[in-house]
Amino acid sequence: MQSLQEKAAAWSGVEAADAFAIDETNLFQKLGLQTFINLSTHFYTRVYDDEEEWFRSIFANSKKEEAIQNQYEFFVQRMGGPPLYSQRRGHPALIGRHRPFPVTHQAAERWLHHMEKALESTPDIDADSKVKMMNFFRHTAYFLVAGDELKNKKQEPSCKCKHGGCKSAAP
Amino acid sequence: MQSLQEKAAAWSGVEAADAFAIDETNLFQKLGLQTFINLSTHFYTRVYDDEEEWFRSIFANSKKEEAIQNQYEFFVQRMGGPPLYSQRRGHPALIGRHRPFPVTHQAAERWLHHMEKALESTPDIDADSKVKMMNFFRHTAYFLVAGDELKNKKQEPSCKCKHGGCKSAAP
Repeated sequence: MQSLQEKAAAWSGVEAADAFAIDETNLFQKLGLQTFINLSTHFYTRVYDDEEEWFRSIFANSKKEEAIQNQYEFFVQRMGGPPLYSQRRGHPALIGRHRPFPVTHQAAERWLHHMEKALESTPDIDADSKVKMMNFFRHTAYFLVAGDELKNKKQEPSCKCKHGGCKSAAP
Repeated sequence: MQSLQEKAAAWSGVEAADAFAIDETNLFQKLGLQTFINLSTHFYTRVYDDEEEWFRSIFANSKKEEAIQNQYEFFVQRMGGPPLYSQRRGHPALIGRHRPFPVTHQAAERWLHHMEKALESTPDIDADSKVKMMNFFRHTAYFLVAGDELKNKKQEPSCKCKHGGCKSAAP
């Protein structure tokens, strides 16, 4: 069985080593808080105005301002800045928190399309940082598609055989 | 409706501000890699030998050596060290990755009991770091109990009304 990160790499075309190259430099120190706020504002302005109603509707129950803050606080925390997200909302728990939403391959691609455009609209982000961030976003989007599939998986009874993966109920 | 972190704070008795006080100092720099390896080794040695069969059986399909590595790599990454966990396994995704396991209040308390004993068996961890780490562990354990409850929640159809929280199917 493929792991979450193996599926993410296979589907996104971005290996974990490239996705987590964001950790090689401190992008928060390089770019600063305002750049992250601008990026998330550009991103969600596109999303909430998306002509694709099926995608826009995924966000219909969330306020735009909150969506922006949740996103930039997570990015800041994950890319070398202060842990703004966890101090306000606890662990990122990316799969758990995306559980209410239909994170399909199609939705991942639409999210990435808007993020690519949002990066283009944020001139304070240099080309190298853009590449690193897009690799992180692409891998993460498909990590969440892989996580979304867990919702449809039935819970298996815990098994005490030595083979693992056994589907019979434990005695 | 209470959020995940509100439930975690209420059930654990540890507010997010105290749980994430681990970020005020760099515990990895203070303690070093070997101390984290020792802590997780002490912890899982207790867990895999637990006289409480119901708790021990939760880990029956995982190898002890892998459980140790997964845990100390996550702790190292979360407490100021290099991102060992993500480079090997991707995002921590704490709720998603705990999905196969029954994370009940009782299981959280048993986990915390073993971790408290493991901390006591690791003399290289000073008293102040121990308090910070136990607060983080206690809050996180109940964050995962809150996350576990999501498994039993039915997916609600997405709703396009302006009120939010509406349970009727979208037109």
